[in-house]
Amino acid sequence: RPYRIAVIPGDGIGQEVAPEGVRVLRRAAERFGLQLELTDIAWASCDYYLEHGTMMPADWKQQLAGMDAIFFGAVGWPAAVPDNVSLWGSLLKFRREFDQYVNLRPVRLFDGVPCPLAGRKPGDLDYLIVRENTEGEYTNLGGTMFAGTEREIVIQESVFSRHGTDRVLKYAFELAASRARRHLTVATKSNGIAISMPWWDSRADEMARAFPQVQVDKQHIDILAARFVLQPQRFDVVVASNLFGDILSDLGPATAGTIGLAPSANLNPERRFPSLFEPVHGSAPDIFGQNIANPIAMIWSGALLLDFLTAGQGAGRAAHDAIVGAIETVLREGPRTRDLGGTASTSELGAAVAALI
Amino acid sequence: RPYRIAVIPGDGIGQEVAPEGVRVLRRAAERFGLQLELTDIAWASCDYYLEHGTMMPADWKQQLAGMDAIFFGAVGWPAAVPDNVSLWGSLLKFRREFDQYVNLRPVRLFDGVPCPLAGRKPGDLDYLIVRENTEGEYTNLGGTMFAGTEREIVIQESVFSRHGTDRVLKYAFELAASRARRHLTVATKSNGIAISMPWWDSRADEMARAFPQVQVDKQHIDILAARFVLQPQRFDVVVASNLFGDILSDLGPATAGTIGLAPSANLNPERRFPSLFEPVHGSAPDIFGQNIANPIAMIWSGALLLDFLTAGQGAGRAAHDAIVGAIETVLREGPRTRDLGGTASTSELGAAVAALI
Ligand SMILES: CC(C)[C@H](C(=O)O)[C@@H](O)C(=O)O
Ligand SMILES: CC(C)[C@H](C(=O)O)[C@@H](O)C(=O)O
Repeated sequence: RPYRIAVIPGDGIGQEVAPEGVRVLRRAAERFGLQLELTDIAWASCDYYLEHGTMMPADWKQQLAGMDAIFFGAVGWPAAVPDNVSLWGSLLKFRREFDQYVNLRPVRLFDGVPCPLAGRKPGDLDYLIVRENTEGEYTNLGGTMFAGTEREIVIQESVFSRHGTDRVLKYAFELAASRARRHLTVATKSNGIAISMPWWDSRADEMARAFPQVQVDKQHIDILAARFVLQPQRFDVVVASNLFGDILSDLGPATAGTIGLAPSANLNPERRFPSLFEPVHGSAPDIFGQNIANPIAMIWSGALLLDFLTAGQGAGRAAHDAIVGAIETVLREGPRTRDLGGTASTSELGAAVAALI
Repeated sequence: RPYRIAVIPGDGIGQEVAPEGVRVLRRAAERFGLQLELTDIAWASCDYYLEHGTMMPADWKQQLAGMDAIFFGAVGWPAAVPDNVSLWGSLLKFRREFDQYVNLRPVRLFDGVPCPLAGRKPGDLDYLIVRENTEGEYTNLGGTMFAGTEREIVIQESVFSRHGTDRVLKYAFELAASRARRHLTVATKSNGIAISMPWWDSRADEMARAFPQVQVDKQHIDILAARFVLQPQRFDVVVASNLFGDILSDLGPATAGTIGLAPSANLNPERRFPSLFEPVHGSAPDIFGQNIANPIAMIWSGALLLDFLTAGQGAGRAAHDAIVGAIETVLREGPRTRDLGGTASTSELGAAVAALI
């Protein structure tokens, strides 16, 4: 049967880059004989909210549950819709209710992309961030005491489960074990965050016993962030909690030139639920409506989608590699969108990538 | 009366850089007519712990309470002493029990220091990080349920008080208001950390009303970290919670070349308790014992100490400026320690800075 993919452009430039992602997906599918069944979805957007008073229809889960993947643009604009409505009502809900517990975010410096780090060449930055995506620091647990008074106290709780921690560590260890360098960096902050992080370290130590072939390097998040800048060649696979992974996966792509190129895969590795593929960048209202957004993050996310759906085998892997190869060529030889110093439009870039496949 | 300063070298290279910091302090005091009374303290170190079973004597607070400042090297080594003993038993205790609620950390690119960011010149990186230093994410509150089983759940609580938040925001707004650019970046993550961070934002909004002359820019910590790399000129004063400030104050100095130069001031602005001045770098066991550590972070911390004790007036300000000027000259013209490509020893560098004052 065909792979079933829900296409959700969402808000802002999500609406501009999603069609280019789809264009390239279709082209790669045709070229490599993959069958895709795409369904366009207009909800999970602030526009939908402003009309209907909810981000998604009541039966959203049923509508999506039969899908293999969600191909997602961006969410969060206009600002009249607060984050706790727009994000917690769509993207963060998908991550949790579809148990997409791995957020996989590659960081890679491409030829032709100016690197903000002095003297770095492609190859110096080439690593994968594995971010825990369902629990940890992202909660709405806690509360306020003596609200509105001088004595006001606010408590925010982070929640880590052994189930949730072990499975993302396992994924990261397996990923590291499958790569040439077999190196895994584990982000921590056990010297300051005194309950959860020493425990996180102990789970990593325990998992490490099952992967003697993987070289493990535990680093505090402060010095780890510094080393993303000073020693990027050091990294191969990096595993981190929800918050630390969030920070590292904007910082890493920034050191590789721009977060405008960074893709991400929100995975439910067991395939009980659809996985979600989206650019790391957001809805970017400042450039929306001009057809100048760079669609490469969306297109690359599409490559990750095909790779995941086919378990990295055969036609899917070939399609992934062809898309990434086309991205490489376009970044090296042009055309370029404005963020990379060119004048090409979003759709010209999409067409250029598609034409190379 | 003389300024009373406790000198605590602590562990590892703390023992090597502290004497150089003291040498320069003494020289500057002599040159500008400041009276200092220095007291050497051998505790608050892991060596002391290994001998006595505690990091500090029972009357540590009485011994230090009469001091105006603590001049601190580094703590945390040998590794046999766990972090919850060494750090929570000394440095983190000082920060809390002496209510040093502002951790002020300048980031500045110097002439002569290779910058890891391509094409950046001194002046492109010149900002101050104000980190909340007593509460927030650094707690040992929380616990474990179903410990040791598959169902294990760990909760970590962050605690923010209006008292603790408002005072550090006020310090940062005042600092921003006193500077030419009058620009303040407020770190947040209100889109993911759903209780404490929206509340933190609301305290910043409230404080902003009292400082209409300050331009305020709220940024999520993920994109803020990216912008430390991509747009460092954007920043003037940055205020952040304990954890976010910790991350930013390793990342910022890294973008300026090395965390080996970065100083910090742990301030109790009301002067009810001694403030503490220390390098951002740690005890660096890998280079300890060779007299090759760079003492500039310690020396610069001494400059911040004199500036703070004299409230930035007269001889104190002159001494601060002379020390920073000497650091500038040495970084530009040498000698250099090994981290900056030279062969000078820790003590040669200290002597070179002192000789310029
Ligand atoms: C929009 C926001 C809630 C989200 C996150 O923090 O996870 C985004 O920054 C990301 O990294 O996907
Ligand atoms: C040693 C550690 C507890 C400390 C911190 O996280 O505050 C250090 O990283 C710092 O920044 O001063």
